[in-house]
Amino acid sequence: MSEADRLRELGQQLRVDSVRSSAAAGSGHPTSSMSAADLMAVLLDGGYLRLDTDDLHNPANDHLIFSKGHASPLYYAVLKAAGIIQDDELLTFRKLDSRLEGHPTPRIPPTDVATGSLGQGLPISVGVALAGKRLDRLPYRVWCLCGDSEMAEGSMWEAFEHAAFAGLDNLTAIIDVNRLGQTRETMVGWNLDVYKRRAEAFGWHAIEIDGHDVEAIDAAYREAVSTTGRPTVVIARTKKGKGVKAVEDLPGKHGKPLDDPDAAIEELGGERDLSVRLAKPEGGQPHRFEVKGGSLPSWELGEEVATRQAYGEALAALGGIRGDVVALDGEVSNSTHSELFREAHEDRYFEMFIAENQLVAAAIGMQVRGWVPFASTFAAFFARAYDFVRMAAISRANLRLSGSHAGVSIGEDGPSQMALEDMASFRAIHGSTVLHPSDANQAAKLVEAMAERTGISFIRTLRGKTEIRTAPDETVEIGGSRIAHEGDDVAIVACGITLDEAVEAAETLAGDGVRARVLDCYSVKPIDADAVRAAARECGAIVTVEDHWPEGGLGDAVLEALAEADDRPPVRKLAVREMPTSGTPDELMHRAGIDAEAIAGAARELAREKVG
Amino acid sequence: MSEADRLRELGQQLRVDSVRSSAAAGSGHPTSSMSAADLMAVLLDGGYLRLDTDDLHNPANDHLIFSKGHASPLYYAVLKAAGIIQDDELLTFRKLDSRLEGHPTPRIPPTDVATGSLGQGLPISVGVALAGKRLDRLPYRVWCLCGDSEMAEGSMWEAFEHAAFAGLDNLTAIIDVNRLGQTRETMVGWNLDVYKRRAEAFGWHAIEIDGHDVEAIDAAYREAVSTTGRPTVVIARTKKGKGVKAVEDLPGKHGKPLDDPDAAIEELGGERDLSVRLAKPEGGQPHRFEVKGGSLPSWELGEEVATRQAYGEALAALGGIRGDVVALDGEVSNSTHSELFREAHEDRYFEMFIAENQLVAAAIGMQVRGWVPFASTFAAFFARAYDFVRMAAISRANLRLSGSHAGVSIGEDGPSQMALEDMASFRAIHGSTVLHPSDANQAAKLVEAMAERTGISFIRTLRGKTEIRTAPDETVEIGGSRIAHEGDDVAIVACGITLDEAVEAAETLAGDGVRARVLDCYSVKPIDADAVRAAARECGAIVTVEDHWPEGGLGDAVLEALAEADDRPPVRKLAVREMPTSGTPDELMHRAGIDAEAIAGAARELAREKVG
Repeated sequence: MSEADRLRELGQQLRVDSVRSSAAAGSGHPTSSMSAADLMAVLLDGGYLRLDTDDLHNPANDHLIFSKGHASPLYYAVLKAAGIIQDDELLTFRKLDSRLEGHPTPRIPPTDVATGSLGQGLPISVGVALAGKRLDRLPYRVWCLCGDSEMAEGSMWEAFEHAAFAGLDNLTAIIDVNRLGQTRETMVGWNLDVYKRRAEAFGWHAIEIDGHDVEAIDAAYREAVSTTGRPTVVIARTKKGKGVKAVEDLPGKHGKPLDDPDAAIEELGGERDLSVRLAKPEGGQPHRFEVKGGSLPSWELGEEVATRQAYGEALAALGGIRGDVVALDGEVSNSTHSELFREAHEDRYFEMFIAENQLVAAAIGMQVRGWVPFASTFAAFFARAYDFVRMAAISRANLRLSGSHAGVSIGEDGPSQMALEDMASFRAIHGSTVLHPSDANQAAKLVEAMAERTGISFIRTLRGKTEIRTAPDETVEIGGSRIAHEGDDVAIVACGITLDEAVEAAETLAGDGVRARVLDCYSVKPIDADAVRAAARECGAIVTVEDHWPEGGLGDAVLEALAEADDRPPVRKLAVREMPTSGTPDELMHRAGIDAEAIAGAARELAREKVG
Repeated sequence: MSEADRLRELGQQLRVDSVRSSAAAGSGHPTSSMSAADLMAVLLDGGYLRLDTDDLHNPANDHLIFSKGHASPLYYAVLKAAGIIQDDELLTFRKLDSRLEGHPTPRIPPTDVATGSLGQGLPISVGVALAGKRLDRLPYRVWCLCGDSEMAEGSMWEAFEHAAFAGLDNLTAIIDVNRLGQTRETMVGWNLDVYKRRAEAFGWHAIEIDGHDVEAIDAAYREAVSTTGRPTVVIARTKKGKGVKAVEDLPGKHGKPLDDPDAAIEELGGERDLSVRLAKPEGGQPHRFEVKGGSLPSWELGEEVATRQAYGEALAALGGIRGDVVALDGEVSNSTHSELFREAHEDRYFEMFIAENQLVAAAIGMQVRGWVPFASTFAAFFARAYDFVRMAAISRANLRLSGSHAGVSIGEDGPSQMALEDMASFRAIHGSTVLHPSDANQAAKLVEAMAERTGISFIRTLRGKTEIRTAPDETVEIGGSRIAHEGDDVAIVACGITLDEAVEAAETLAGDGVRARVLDCYSVKPIDADAVRAAARECGAIVTVEDHWPEGGLGDAVLEALAEADDRPPVRKLAVREMPTSGTPDELMHRAGIDAEAIAGAARELAREKVG
């Protein structure tokens, strides 16, 4: 059998296996798999994908990312052909406890990340490729299979722009232009030249081919591998459902198994059992950055420092202690203060410009390779990347995000720049950690803790200065809290900017004979449930106060901690309830009813009701 | 004075006023305003912007959207030059209670939408332009001033693609290429040709000019207005801080007032008081769609129907009753069932393809013009557009979003397709409404209510069928609830897919002598606090159950309703606590501990503890 014949046979096998697994599952996307089967056959058997199947975690391995995650039947057929899974496992597709989920996840190695929300695989591939070039400094290549429908996602063009800007010639995107989306033709259809012009305008080398011509595919990959200085995109004209007349290039055939799989398999030439010995990667160990050591910054009690400043100083110091820490920013590094890291460790800093999807995606890609990324922008602007964060949890990614400019306390810039929903949205990410330090010493220690933390952790920092109340040698930990003012008539639970206000309120109340306990819950998730329950038990009434909307933030975390507690006193939630405007921080905190005056009023009332 | 001289003078006035307002505020972005001053001067005084300043709500008015919202000093200087505001108001910039916020909002007419989160103004402009072409059918033009930094946002390219696809020759984008971002040069710098090639590859007519040459600007606008069949982008090379040597084209001058405003004003030639009489729009009234009337669908008790099916049928029916209702979808209309609206009212249906930012932005743009848009996709994928939803609240937009495929109950597709954080994220949007009907009759009535609702409303629909338990003539309303099973030993609060499970649990419990009340809180925000409090008072223990992460959803809404209630019984939250996989809906609900068995177990335990 000629090599071309063998490639064609392998393509048919990948189709047959896609049909089989989807039929066994009773659901799935076989037609979206069949269009790209030849593209994958050549990638495997042409020696392009260099992957050590005896060591799927070999750092020198190439990476294969299915941005079109719904083509999972094809992906699993690829794994079978490469000997990574066996046929019996292939047929567990989409069943409970199978590693072969409806869309790929890292539960099945060597899958790097979960895909299935379109438009994510390519930006994440950019992150892996950046790691290859600038961090690992290994010659691995990232191959990313994209659907044509997802080319409408803006995040794909963030990736196109950044990949070219960074000169990522270790990245190859393959667009499976099967023309048909879920319900109709795409905006571009089979006008491959449109994709080519766009890709070239964004700085890529672009190659148009017939995606079912194995020799053309082979030539394109060869050209991609030998192109230097810029990434390559292979734009392949394909047919959805290729090879089976009942579905080939027909509308209405998306996302469902074939009606007659047996006939389809016969039409495709029957089952095959070709196995491919993948090319081995060049060896090599990842680069390690030398570090000089040092210690985290700390501040004396009573100093006034912005927690965003502490974030930057702590991260820069951490970068001096740990060579695996890297930083990324969305072109606001002088606001988030990640610029301090850049100045100290320029080779580990990544400017991602005003492209928050790519910012987060790049961090996800870097953690695939074991780096410890901290990505920062205004906390409000992480909302732009919320779907990437959601998916990162499914990817079991270890991701550290730092959002500055929390809440109305930023003042004059107005609500577009104020994060007021961030604690809620990040708390609702599976396995997440949400931190909102009230002073710089807390912030520094929490940054250090985040580097060790698995899952997605988010630190919310303040634009303005707050007083150092946490002693430099005091323990600060994820899940911890501290009592900032003693008392047992009423408890005030605060975090971030409201802590100073709460302490001021407690001092006012003390003058009236009301002893208020101020609990600083700098760890919002996990919250210090023991401390909250103790406050409930010992104080009998709780005021929570946060620079955030009422839903999903500190107040709700407190309520959750008390939901089944033995003591469930009344909880009054002070939060931002009207749309803020511009104004000074003090004016806006006052108007929102989250300043010392409002806190004292609420606490006094609750303490009185308790007695009454 | 020649026209060109007058335009240059007006440009200087806009600069001077930008410097003055920022100086008065002590903050702001004067340099980002100064780069685009000449571009705005020609727009105003060249007769391009046709806006009835005596009637800012004239439906025939052109629209001017500052996608680079931080250039608000320029925007307000424009309003002053046009006689819309006076000089004394200009100097209230960024002060409490001023309409002139740090970034524009609709508090100051004729501002259509809030901007300030970059990358939003252009996609929203696409929505306004779509409304002009296909809904209003008026010849108004949309002018959108974009920054060059925000060209890195993928959402801008979603807009570029869709605008060309839709042939929006009533849209002109103006890119102020001042080269300098917040901390450094952009990726493209002054390579205007790069932007031109990209825009052309996306189907736009593109014109490169010197953005400080008023005659070139005038010629470009003339060309834009006369270009048919496609949108035009004017790519203008400018200098940040133009006209003042202390800041012109210098790094480090972003987002701060000038150090010496008086010297700058002098350098700019001093204050001026030019006023511009804007061109009036062509007259005309917006098109109205004729409707045939009809009634909403309803289903008989005991039938089994998916709420997403009910959404589609109800929306199609509503479109027959109200001519102002329009629908948009993210290329999943056969999943969300918005296809039923498309089939019934094709001229009011907008296919937005796989581009969720543009999907939501288009809806925002259409509601600017008073249309009543319903935008649908998988609930999980609205996470991609979360920043647009956040900003829509600041825009005071009336927006209806429908998210299908909620929770683990979708089954085999796996977690990438499951919305599990949507209720939390939408509850944390200011002024939002969050609905999760448990049956089709509820869904239909809530769709009707959403059309009347101000603010942002979100309806969460199910992939699978549920039993009709709400009688066709029963009242269903935002803020309402219903008792699906009577009892007072324990209360089970459910919504959506968990309602059937809760009723089954209650029936099981009844066999054990435990009388459980099942409260169907189909309105999650606002929740029916009275009914929740009554359940707390009368039942003494509550189980909440939701197909959602534990944070920020139904359980937290219940806890919030009880936070200060007189009766605060224990609340056990059943929710999805581990990352789901693929599996059947029943298997996944069982594993998540949100099925009838888990509910009955929890309710039995709480009822027992209550007695004990």
